[in-house]
Amino acid sequence: METKINESLIEGRNPVIEAIRAGKPIDKLYVQDGCNDGPVMTIKREAKKHDIFIKYVAKERLDQISETGKHQGVIAYSAAYEYSEMEDIFAKAKEKGEAPFVFILDNIEDPHNLGAIIRTANLAGAHGVIIPKNRAVGLTATVARTSAGALNYTPVVKVTNIAKTIEELKDRGLWFVCADMDGEVMYRQNLTGPIGLVIGNEGDGVSRLVKEKCDYVASIPMKGDIDSLNASVAAGVLAYEIVRQRMAK
Amino acid sequence: METKINESLIEGRNPVIEAIRAGKPIDKLYVQDGCNDGPVMTIKREAKKHDIFIKYVAKERLDQISETGKHQGVIAYSAAYEYSEMEDIFAKAKEKGEAPFVFILDNIEDPHNLGAIIRTANLAGAHGVIIPKNRAVGLTATVARTSAGALNYTPVVKVTNIAKTIEELKDRGLWFVCADMDGEVMYRQNLTGPIGLVIGNEGDGVSRLVKEKCDYVASIPMKGDIDSLNASVAAGVLAYEIVRQRMAK
Repeated sequence: METKINESLIEGRNPVIEAIRAGKPIDKLYVQDGCNDGPVMTIKREAKKHDIFIKYVAKERLDQISETGKHQGVIAYSAAYEYSEMEDIFAKAKEKGEAPFVFILDNIEDPHNLGAIIRTANLAGAHGVIIPKNRAVGLTATVARTSAGALNYTPVVKVTNIAKTIEELKDRGLWFVCADMDGEVMYRQNLTGPIGLVIGNEGDGVSRLVKEKCDYVASIPMKGDIDSLNASVAAGVLAYEIVRQRMAK
Repeated sequence: METKINESLIEGRNPVIEAIRAGKPIDKLYVQDGCNDGPVMTIKREAKKHDIFIKYVAKERLDQISETGKHQGVIAYSAAYEYSEMEDIFAKAKEKGEAPFVFILDNIEDPHNLGAIIRTANLAGAHGVIIPKNRAVGLTATVARTSAGALNYTPVVKVTNIAKTIEELKDRGLWFVCADMDGEVMYRQNLTGPIGLVIGNEGDGVSRLVKEKCDYVASIPMKGDIDSLNASVAAGVLAYEIVRQRMAK
């Protein structure tokens, strides 16, 4: 898999327009609220054409994000790494002679969590990680760093619609399990075979639409006083229950 | 358990001297390399008297850490929360009618990891977390935040010497397991009963002295290309193997 590290922040109108036109992978595009002049309209048009999600924010937010202090109302995050294709995941499973095992991240927002989860996916023997195109965090420099090198080995695929992707992968023989408190305890479920592990957002968990697509809902036993595990810890605990069951089989 | 949130940074000579003399819990004390004048010597003497570890750093490092810009060559980190006593852990186990289950952290350095591990300890039903006095990170504001409230419930005890503490807890009936790559796969070990789970440093793992004190060395199966899981993920995976075995018993 080819990996390529780029700059992660692009600031200012012309640099952002050029980056989009050049087809640079843009994860997020921040535009200042109420900016509607010519160049900004061009950016909006180009973003739409390239399927890039725009987030409108206050000038103060941009000032805060800016590294150069010269954002002119526009900052883009460029992906640090190139994304893979879905076929890369299946190729990897085939190459290892194993039933496919993928992680599906339903809107992980924290780059440290994303990096730690990709790291876990690699070590648990998953063949790839699927993330949504919009809203969630992408493969920034922070993600690359916290993945501890796993990004060089584990394919990460970006898809437009998680629920639709689950449908497509079901057609290819995968079963889907998502983590949720109201599910059956994971130790009592059969998590072997070709499987997709769905991990929800840090605050909101797995979205309703995605949850409805899952075949199983598995819960991690909670024996304490607080609500939930850190998202990357939860992903690790579930992934290793899958590893245990695969090894026992 | 009483919890108390303090300021986390104390800067300048007099504020630091006063804080130490007042018995404020100081996690770390940074002193500028080569500073040997009267007030700094007083700080060194007081720090020694209160068993506070001093780290000598360059002025640039202090400038970087400083929030006020007026550190005068001295910055102290004050613990955000009060620490508990070892008896609080045993009391908690007794209250729940369970065999003691403690986490022992052999030099976790990243406050996000420490917070996530305390969060995991709470949800895995551990009765407390033990951390070393020197070198490792203490209960700062970041730790409190990433623990997601767990610090309010799970006792955290600070000890001078981890290896010695393990010896003492063995006398009270605990068994110790540490995570290390060269150990027996965790699924094949008996991890029930009164147990101490030892988690090593992010980069170096469990130190040799501490490892020698452990009854078992357990490994997490590694099926990927990179070296190791994130420390808080590894702690979660091992802790939940203990939970699984406790539930199955």
